[in-house]
Amino acid sequence: MPGAVLPEVATQIPGPISKASAKKLDEVFDARAVHFVVDYDKSEGNYIVDVDGNRYLDVYSQIASVPVGYNNPAMLAAAQSPDVISALVNRPAIGNFPSRWWNDILREGLLRVAPAGTDKIFTAQSGSEANELAFKAAMMLWRRRERGEGVAWTQEEIESCLDNAKPGSPDLAVLAFKNSFHGRGFGSLSCTRSKAVHKLDIPAFNWPKADFPVLQYPLDKHEKENAAEEKRCLEQVEMLITSWHCPVTALIIEPIQSEGGDNHASPAFFQGLRDITAKHNVVFIVDEVQTGFGATGKFWAHEHWHLSSPPDMITFSKRAQCAGYFFGNEKLVPDTAYRQFNTWIGDPARVVMSKAIIHEILDKNLVEKSARVGEKLWAELELLALDYPELVQNLRGKGKGAFLAFDTREPAALVGKMRSLGINIGTCGTRTVRLRPMLIFGDEHIPILMDAFRKVFGAA
Amino acid sequence: MPGAVLPEVATQIPGPISKASAKKLDEVFDARAVHFVVDYDKSEGNYIVDVDGNRYLDVYSQIASVPVGYNNPAMLAAAQSPDVISALVNRPAIGNFPSRWWNDILREGLLRVAPAGTDKIFTAQSGSEANELAFKAAMMLWRRRERGEGVAWTQEEIESCLDNAKPGSPDLAVLAFKNSFHGRGFGSLSCTRSKAVHKLDIPAFNWPKADFPVLQYPLDKHEKENAAEEKRCLEQVEMLITSWHCPVTALIIEPIQSEGGDNHASPAFFQGLRDITAKHNVVFIVDEVQTGFGATGKFWAHEHWHLSSPPDMITFSKRAQCAGYFFGNEKLVPDTAYRQFNTWIGDPARVVMSKAIIHEILDKNLVEKSARVGEKLWAELELLALDYPELVQNLRGKGKGAFLAFDTREPAALVGKMRSLGINIGTCGTRTVRLRPMLIFGDEHIPILMDAFRKVFGAA
Repeated sequence: MPGAVLPEVATQIPGPISKASAKKLDEVFDARAVHFVVDYDKSEGNYIVDVDGNRYLDVYSQIASVPVGYNNPAMLAAAQSPDVISALVNRPAIGNFPSRWWNDILREGLLRVAPAGTDKIFTAQSGSEANELAFKAAMMLWRRRERGEGVAWTQEEIESCLDNAKPGSPDLAVLAFKNSFHGRGFGSLSCTRSKAVHKLDIPAFNWPKADFPVLQYPLDKHEKENAAEEKRCLEQVEMLITSWHCPVTALIIEPIQSEGGDNHASPAFFQGLRDITAKHNVVFIVDEVQTGFGATGKFWAHEHWHLSSPPDMITFSKRAQCAGYFFGNEKLVPDTAYRQFNTWIGDPARVVMSKAIIHEILDKNLVEKSARVGEKLWAELELLALDYPELVQNLRGKGKGAFLAFDTREPAALVGKMRSLGINIGTCGTRTVRLRPMLIFGDEHIPILMDAFRKVFGAA
Repeated sequence: MPGAVLPEVATQIPGPISKASAKKLDEVFDARAVHFVVDYDKSEGNYIVDVDGNRYLDVYSQIASVPVGYNNPAMLAAAQSPDVISALVNRPAIGNFPSRWWNDILREGLLRVAPAGTDKIFTAQSGSEANELAFKAAMMLWRRRERGEGVAWTQEEIESCLDNAKPGSPDLAVLAFKNSFHGRGFGSLSCTRSKAVHKLDIPAFNWPKADFPVLQYPLDKHEKENAAEEKRCLEQVEMLITSWHCPVTALIIEPIQSEGGDNHASPAFFQGLRDITAKHNVVFIVDEVQTGFGATGKFWAHEHWHLSSPPDMITFSKRAQCAGYFFGNEKLVPDTAYRQFNTWIGDPARVVMSKAIIHEILDKNLVEKSARVGEKLWAELELLALDYPELVQNLRGKGKGAFLAFDTREPAALVGKMRSLGINIGTCGTRTVRLRPMLIFGDEHIPILMDAFRKVFGAA
């Protein structure tokens, strides 16, 4: 294909320099999860180059967090802009001493892509933090409603909360789903239900877990079973909300469960959640940390649902290269200042970078491009599944851009073999390979990826 | 004094442009805690300039988080260095795909100032996150010891943790102190005991709280009472550790409780904590988020204690302009990869900036400078306390650089009046004014600060 750079692999993966470098790093910094050590200066666009000189087509993009390619010229320009330099050198306590341009940066950047129905933002530094901040806003709203508008905090509340005791520190819950991933803080981890390695040995809140629908593929051959499965899960959600030992103040869900195995549900399911949460005054939080910023062929994955009313909060991170939550209801701003607060409240340098990313995505119609390329990639993967039905199962993500996945027998082995062919991909769940190309992944990269799959599967 | 720029205040504070700007911002971003809106381009060194053109001597430094001054030339150079540009544009998932220079940046930067007895690091994005990561490492170590080295996780553990249930999600505690501040995540907030505004309405873990010694001032006139008070608190700590309903895996303490009111304790008290934690296998975490990076006249405040053996973990953020924890015991690296992990594991752009800060501090002997200036500032404050004994009480921080504080009747009113004289200072606790000058605060700034105090108190 014209314009397509080919991967180049000259060593075993990881190569000797990568290995030595990771070993050296491991003396001071846990490097056991290092796949290879990277020369980012030599990486470009969709291609990542390791310190041994191997060049990979990157279809994993830093755990789904590279939006517009390595050394993207627009980002290089932004990184050298006066605003970024100033934000790096003069890091403000934004809540107390914001920069004169903070308002403009928000409006010209993140708020330009605020999901429909939202017009306010709170910034953070990670998806985990964004989710916890959203939980806190939901809990404060719940208690504000219970307490009554304008009713002062009682002395008992004020004193007991300093002892981590009721009524000041109440039992309030957030409902999440089986196989979900919402982060690794003590609150977000209590909502994460993906793998033991994320959770073992860490205390957790007694919060409810609902089943996420387990759909059967191909979807068009299992409409009835899948509808029944989603109905069952919705009924369970409502049962949990109405019967839990303490108030369920918020429900958090990923549009596509990513770490947990690329699990999808239908728009009707999410509309059901919207209805149930609205009925019970539960804040509906959509965790778009992995799906946001164009990953699914729309800027926000929840746009695929065409909900009757928007989610209450949308959290983001990863491809945004910064983090936070969007919301519309001003009651989600706590009753007084300093309740939702911290020293930095995000990182303005990263928020300015995010503005450049947003402009790049919008100016170059990268979401539309990714939707289009994703369709072609889907068609190729369908052919692959026909040729290797044992090795490519439950192909999923149709219509969700290039946010595609399938189950296979030995995902980790497949990833290793793909790397030695110069393709960097990732796994999720227990038997799934997930594709997380950047938004600039083009038609010309599809054959490179597919050739590698066919080589590996053909040799299996 | 030669070289000292004078503050300039030409409007009411906040000025009309600040007010209008904050109001506009508040439409989209909670701006109720904004003191004034800043023109960082015009700010320099110790002076912060607002959008109305008012220039303040900044003795609060973004809630104690500016190390070497606004628009510091070394930081400006670092912000434009290839490493920072690369880290901004190509943000890695450090745990999987570290940059070829990550190892060097850590060793030439943060590890150069690793506290004695530590030689390993885990990076994070905020003090809150750093503390929670430290808790998790302590909890995993505790269970590893209980489980036995090399003993595999049981199926029951693996399954139960996904339900937030025992034994996989055990009851494990972290002990913290009354009036402490350790962050606002659900775990760190369970250790924060400072003010209701930080904690109210948020669920908390049932973790123990010990009294922090309440010392009487001046110290040399209350030696006996203060020793008794510290003994009482130490006994309480040991009682809590040995009698709590679940294992206390870690103890976290600030060398000087900052948000909670600038509360000090003696080296003997901290040695007592070291002894008790060592005796009971409790991980001793020193939270140097506010005190680290030279704030107290030593690079790390716990150096003042001359402990018989070092703390197990030291967390940092704020002046470091990045965050994380240091440690020495390799058992604090969890038994397998991916247990202590997240997508970004800190922000390399900020870590490179931190390296520049460290070099600036070391090259210019800024810790020694701050210690020296702090002594003079202390002497002036003692004179002030003699002249205004009703308004300047419990002066504290002697020998701790410029990390000084005193109690006063109406701290918020004092801060307001000081701002209108062009001095930016902050409060803490319920009746305390805290000074948090940068490390470049010089002799020449002392009279400017003292003149303002005298003007305000003289008019009182």
